[in-house]
Amino acid sequence: MKHGGDILSYKDLYKGEIIDFSSNINPMGRPKGLDIELKRAFNDLEKYPDIKYRNLKKEVSGYLKCDTENIVLGNGSMEIIDSIMVFKDKVTLFYPSFGEYEDRARIHNKKKIKLSLDENFKIEIDKLKNNLEEDSLLIIGNPNNPTGLRIEKEKLLLIYNIALSKNSILVLDEAFFEFSPTDYDSIELFRNYNFENVVIIRAATKFFALPGIRLGYACTSKILAEKLTERQMPWSINSMADTAGKYIFNQQNYINESKEYIANERMYMIDELEKINEIQAFPTQANFILIKLKKFNGEYLLKELIQQGILIRTCTSFLGLDDSFIRVAIKSREDNHRLIEALKSILERE
Amino acid sequence: MKHGGDILSYKDLYKGEIIDFSSNINPMGRPKGLDIELKRAFNDLEKYPDIKYRNLKKEVSGYLKCDTENIVLGNGSMEIIDSIMVFKDKVTLFYPSFGEYEDRARIHNKKKIKLSLDENFKIEIDKLKNNLEEDSLLIIGNPNNPTGLRIEKEKLLLIYNIALSKNSILVLDEAFFEFSPTDYDSIELFRNYNFENVVIIRAATKFFALPGIRLGYACTSKILAEKLTERQMPWSINSMADTAGKYIFNQQNYINESKEYIANERMYMIDELEKINEIQAFPTQANFILIKLKKFNGEYLLKELIQQGILIRTCTSFLGLDDSFIRVAIKSREDNHRLIEALKSILERE
Repeated sequence: MKHGGDILSYKDLYKGEIIDFSSNINPMGRPKGLDIELKRAFNDLEKYPDIKYRNLKKEVSGYLKCDTENIVLGNGSMEIIDSIMVFKDKVTLFYPSFGEYEDRARIHNKKKIKLSLDENFKIEIDKLKNNLEEDSLLIIGNPNNPTGLRIEKEKLLLIYNIALSKNSILVLDEAFFEFSPTDYDSIELFRNYNFENVVIIRAATKFFALPGIRLGYACTSKILAEKLTERQMPWSINSMADTAGKYIFNQQNYINESKEYIANERMYMIDELEKINEIQAFPTQANFILIKLKKFNGEYLLKELIQQGILIRTCTSFLGLDDSFIRVAIKSREDNHRLIEALKSILERE
Repeated sequence: MKHGGDILSYKDLYKGEIIDFSSNINPMGRPKGLDIELKRAFNDLEKYPDIKYRNLKKEVSGYLKCDTENIVLGNGSMEIIDSIMVFKDKVTLFYPSFGEYEDRARIHNKKKIKLSLDENFKIEIDKLKNNLEEDSLLIIGNPNNPTGLRIEKEKLLLIYNIALSKNSILVLDEAFFEFSPTDYDSIELFRNYNFENVVIIRAATKFFALPGIRLGYACTSKILAEKLTERQMPWSINSMADTAGKYIFNQQNYINESKEYIANERMYMIDELEKINEIQAFPTQANFILIKLKKFNGEYLLKELIQQGILIRTCTSFLGLDDSFIRVAIKSREDNHRLIEALKSILERE
């Protein structure tokens, strides 16, 4: 399984609605009222989107609290990750992490330097210092996928300074930012540095539950933002995504409730998972949980769970993880409860 | 003006709805019933689109009459034009033509070979033969933008054979295909060659009046289709475009009526424009008309017409054309009449 969310490949194995724990989407669903906005914008489908996305950029810059000149938009965060590849000939990444970092580096013929996280899935500063080559892109998930861990603020600044000292660009993939504790905001942090040689990528995909709409955005220095924007394909964001972007960032109640919901449900899930002796659930600051199986393996569990209408993410496609790992999303209480019970029923079998 | 359809840049110059003759969209508007399909698919926004776009590919292959393995999908035809750039280090194009061919070649650091069309905006076979280098991409609009001319069938085969003999790939941008006379279909033509070294690009953008939805597709050899697809970003087509694609190609009445409407309206427009002595309207097989001004210039006319709520396309951004050219779309009879009258009122002034 290379990506989560590929329900279509499993639908023949279960009659009925499959609960998708393999893709990490806000269980509250898309913001209320969005459908009305989208319907209203159907006529806009007959026009090209604004080639400069002026209004959308204004909304994003308001939400991220930086200038419009710092903003880069993308057809999902993928387009931004992809277009950043042109800046350097080397890509450094830690593993396990989102497979597309390596895929995009391969497709763009970059030299790849892959460093393992430590046994607690943390970045070792000395390892980075010793292995980061001059003129690299250093791509890090924050929180990281599939581990769920966020870099501590002080450590992040250390990492940034190492990147700067090697004339490298720090790329933070923060697709899961809003699910994390609010101890710091990397955009606030790097504003003090004018975002020099740092690109912070976020997206509507996960937190606003809109993977189908393809809207990513990044905050970076004005120089890098201009370079990225001038290389982009015209009209790469469709007008429905444009419309959604002008609406969702103003839904403060939805934003607050979602954060609170995930924080509570994360505690519940971790508590419940810790009661199952046959697994080890890792700490997480995201809306998903990496689990190590002490019994059976991911492939077996996937097949058993799909028969109960539950799809999980196996982890063998992640470099550094084997089939003893699975990843599950945090979903509604009802769904989470169903997962826990299903896991117990399978794992506690003789 | 680098692209048509940029109404936002002109809206301060006219209070009221601007009639946009600068972008070449089917005046019948999007297919009826599409809105209902899109509304029904709002829940899909919370899922990733099928990463392989299996159903969409089936619909496109049915519409284009080729195998699904021949199909490449794109976030508009732009994504396909962009991704083709990796195949060769040289790009040959004729001018005037769509500015993005050259832009994408520049962005991908390709060697550009730019050949002028003749005084009637036709391709000279000898010029192509003498100038096409080995291992090139040869990109041709068919019909070509902004000239509106389609290559005759026999000539197209000549061009194709020249491309083959130089180990080059012929890329036909057929964004305006359905507006053209039905004398031949390049997909039918090149099916006999298994689409070897030819890529025929089309899109929902112009004919289905959906520039906002970003849905392009191409037909090529199975080898090239696989190479292009494996390089693509995951989920580059959003789920609204996915849904639209599953609907529009089956709207046979809409398709027939649109073709008939444009054919009639094209005749009307050419007839009326020929009555204006101060301009020369070029023959066209598309849904737009290139016009040479014998009086005033494009910039002046643009300013005069915008005061009457009409936006035209100036042509100075097209290599080979100067400010004595403008391009206008074929729109509804009412709008076309308004344009004709406005042109007369300005051009026949003392």
